[in-house]
Amino acid sequence: MNNFNWDTSFLVDFDLHTGESKTSEVTKRYLSQMKNMFSDTEAVEKILENEDPVIYEFHELGFPEEAGHIAFGTSIVHPGTIGNEYYMTKGHFHTILETAEVYYTLSGEGYMVMENPEGDTMEVPLRKGEVIYVPKRYAHRSVNTGNIPLVMFFSFGAEAGHDYGTIETKGYHKLIVEENGKSAIVDNPHWK
Amino acid sequence: MNNFNWDTSFLVDFDLHTGESKTSEVTKRYLSQMKNMFSDTEAVEKILENEDPVIYEFHELGFPEEAGHIAFGTSIVHPGTIGNEYYMTKGHFHTILETAEVYYTLSGEGYMVMENPEGDTMEVPLRKGEVIYVPKRYAHRSVNTGNIPLVMFFSFGAEAGHDYGTIETKGYHKLIVEENGKSAIVDNPHWK
Repeated sequence: MNNFNWDTSFLVDFDLHTGESKTSEVTKRYLSQMKNMFSDTEAVEKILENEDPVIYEFHELGFPEEAGHIAFGTSIVHPGTIGNEYYMTKGHFHTILETAEVYYTLSGEGYMVMENPEGDTMEVPLRKGEVIYVPKRYAHRSVNTGNIPLVMFFSFGAEAGHDYGTIETKGYHKLIVEENGKSAIVDNPHWK
Repeated sequence: MNNFNWDTSFLVDFDLHTGESKTSEVTKRYLSQMKNMFSDTEAVEKILENEDPVIYEFHELGFPEEAGHIAFGTSIVHPGTIGNEYYMTKGHFHTILETAEVYYTLSGEGYMVMENPEGDTMEVPLRKGEVIYVPKRYAHRSVNTGNIPLVMFFSFGAEAGHDYGTIETKGYHKLIVEENGKSAIVDNPHWK
């Protein structure tokens, strides 16, 4: 948590097109940190021999994980593929499952890939100028299927917390891959 | 509450510049509905003899007032003055005082005018591309001091609720007025 006092008002800049922010902290996720999340592990290893690309980044403030506060920030998923799988975020459940989240797409296109603990899945296309509602109980991952960064502004109840471990262990039921130059939703052959 | 099922995912369009939305409902606030909120009641009556201008509007979905959901939408405050006081929203406390709100300015400029039940006041300038954090316990009103609409995307915990009555009865401690072609923060002579 940084120096902002969440009991008073403050301002944070987020560029309405790029999502960049001078005020908040940036966290970058490199391919080496997501090795086991992409389906084509051979493609991952081959890329990592030469470089370690940034897959996505987010700009946010540290925030108090307490009910009544609203956490917010931007996420930027870069364009690209690993094998035939598009760049994406790790994705996570909320620790408090019964909490929703709102994402407003500022630029780019892609999919929000969601699933709940019962295994129900949803893949919803993302377009600039649309808000997607991620309902309670659904893990969510954003996938960039376009040629420019997928930029979204997000907000959620600050008490929600993040559970990345479940997805890291089990993966998602569905993958978004490039087939004949177009995006396609396919079953994950490695789902556990 | 409209037809959206908040237990599943859905998409809502909000123009990133104008705040307009085809998917959600629009609510317009006319001057006749805000008669007693502007300081210069003679100016109000004079305008209403000829016309009843829209002061502001908001686009949102009806939403379940329950913890875990996130309510969201856009507000559009039109440019103009009543006497020397700029167009503004009614402003409100949350019924559950201990809940914050986030506003992301998409277009225009102005002030967020805030005060808590103890009478502490804050007036924070709004600029395109900045998020303002409205902390727990603070009533909030947005004021358009520019020549174009002040457009903001907002989100808050859906359980928060709205208390408009306190502000309608008591007013705000501070007003934002035009003085010599510039905006100024002054004490409200009518505050009760």
